[in-house]
Amino acid sequence: MKIESIGEFGLIEELARLLPEGKDVIKGIGDDAAVLAGRRRDSYLLVATDSIAENVHFRRSSGAYWIGRKGLAVNLSDIAAMGGSPLWAVVNLGIPSGISVRYCRQLYRGMAELAEEFELSVVGGDTFRSPDGIVISVTVIGEVERKRCVFRDGARPGDVICVTGKLGEGRGKHLKFTPRIKEGRYLGESFSPSAMIDISDGLFADLGHICRASGVGAVIGESAIPLAARLRGKSEKVKLRALGDGEEFELLFSLPENEISNLLSSFSAETGTTVTPIGKIIDDQGRRELVGRDGKVKPFPETGYNHFS
Amino acid sequence: MKIESIGEFGLIEELARLLPEGKDVIKGIGDDAAVLAGRRRDSYLLVATDSIAENVHFRRSSGAYWIGRKGLAVNLSDIAAMGGSPLWAVVNLGIPSGISVRYCRQLYRGMAELAEEFELSVVGGDTFRSPDGIVISVTVIGEVERKRCVFRDGARPGDVICVTGKLGEGRGKHLKFTPRIKEGRYLGESFSPSAMIDISDGLFADLGHICRASGVGAVIGESAIPLAARLRGKSEKVKLRALGDGEEFELLFSLPENEISNLLSSFSAETGTTVTPIGKIIDDQGRRELVGRDGKVKPFPETGYNHFS
Repeated sequence: MKIESIGEFGLIEELARLLPEGKDVIKGIGDDAAVLAGRRRDSYLLVATDSIAENVHFRRSSGAYWIGRKGLAVNLSDIAAMGGSPLWAVVNLGIPSGISVRYCRQLYRGMAELAEEFELSVVGGDTFRSPDGIVISVTVIGEVERKRCVFRDGARPGDVICVTGKLGEGRGKHLKFTPRIKEGRYLGESFSPSAMIDISDGLFADLGHICRASGVGAVIGESAIPLAARLRGKSEKVKLRALGDGEEFELLFSLPENEISNLLSSFSAETGTTVTPIGKIIDDQGRRELVGRDGKVKPFPETGYNHFS
Repeated sequence: MKIESIGEFGLIEELARLLPEGKDVIKGIGDDAAVLAGRRRDSYLLVATDSIAENVHFRRSSGAYWIGRKGLAVNLSDIAAMGGSPLWAVVNLGIPSGISVRYCRQLYRGMAELAEEFELSVVGGDTFRSPDGIVISVTVIGEVERKRCVFRDGARPGDVICVTGKLGEGRGKHLKFTPRIKEGRYLGESFSPSAMIDISDGLFADLGHICRASGVGAVIGESAIPLAARLRGKSEKVKLRALGDGEEFELLFSLPENEISNLLSSFSAETGTTVTPIGKIIDDQGRRELVGRDGKVKPFPETGYNHFS
């Protein structure tokens, strides 16, 4: 049996099943970051890890600065999705022979500037020869107050589904996004989000992750989804495909309905980022529906990125 | 300028210089693991990270179980070299298309069994398509009591240089070694090692790291080095080359002279591992000398693995 046949999520589930999990583990594999017994009685440690590889997640020609920055940014996005703040990072860099020192420096600079912006320290790393392409694996350790930690599995029927920013920005954004740390912190501090995830696999796939983890369903209004300007006037099909691309790195979360008016009146002023209610959590676990602009109800489109397909 | 011209250590120094380091960082890049403000006032957190890549650190044919095990083991060795205990690990696995699910399972099993043996939890991971070869990046988080944390930079003139196990075991051991966690713990608990490192770059290169960090020199007696049985009767040249191969993953440490007799009488009985005094730390920073079997003094051989040479 080839990997392609069980896919990325199948593989991660295998990993979770086989590998031991024990002391001081609040939540292991299965959320945006692992949640671990913290440094204070009222805090958790968070650990997120993610890799990006040349010709899979980026092209070498996209610019070393942005590639390095993205290697760190995807992990900060995972910390943001738990409501946490980053503390430290370690970097594993696989470099093919023939890459210039200048290129590596630019790559580090992209990481360094983002690390400085979010006040985290890069405390360790390893470099190794990677025969055929650049590989960047970063692990970020963060922290969150226990009562502000937001998991994937707490969405409740009646909660309103919201998303930050605009979706479907496409390739440019995949590389240059700003991790929503500030927004995740503000949500955790001032509201009680019941579930949260960052959009990396695509809106429908990631909302699916929340639904599966929480044992709920979801209904989204297609016209409510905040689309990037570049999609204006485009066909339904193009828009839905863009939403399936993933790598948006916006926050997708559910919030009790009675907090929505407060959220809408303060979020953008406090964070500089827009927030949009796009649907509702429902009781029926099997139902994940999109209400079209024409009022017709259809199941979520089958989209989302699978690294092994 | 190509990477080859500054080498792996040059690259890591670049990284250390460029990347910010700040809050709660006791020791960042430059030791076996990063040392961070801990979960209790009297403890530190440790973070080690290391990658192994197909055709650089292993061949696919060496067996998935042992490859997976090694991906974790190299990091445990780094935690051991600080005197610490592992708590948690995260795993990044880059898989070329066409690898079988069975192969991946075996790889995980190698990790899982080692994790169980050392009572750590694998709490997260990422899998991604790696176009041309398997890449495993693991990050391990550990813990150590403050007063038992052993850095590289504390070696003092007069200290005795010791090493665990036997050196020069060669290829077989590179893959199947047991990380010296138990030995590192026992040293930290019962003695006051002034500096410690795990032998990954080779005896002479790693002792050089201790000397540089501590601002000291070292003299080793060639006949005192505990060699693997397979090197018996081999020429001087072959023996020295074997010592330069690296990937021994034994502990190399310095200890005040007055603790040596206690060490020699208890270490092996307590840990099941041999320990051997091989030389002395000296004041003169520039001097790193090997006293041959013939009594002649020569500088350390130029050995040690460089990933980019």
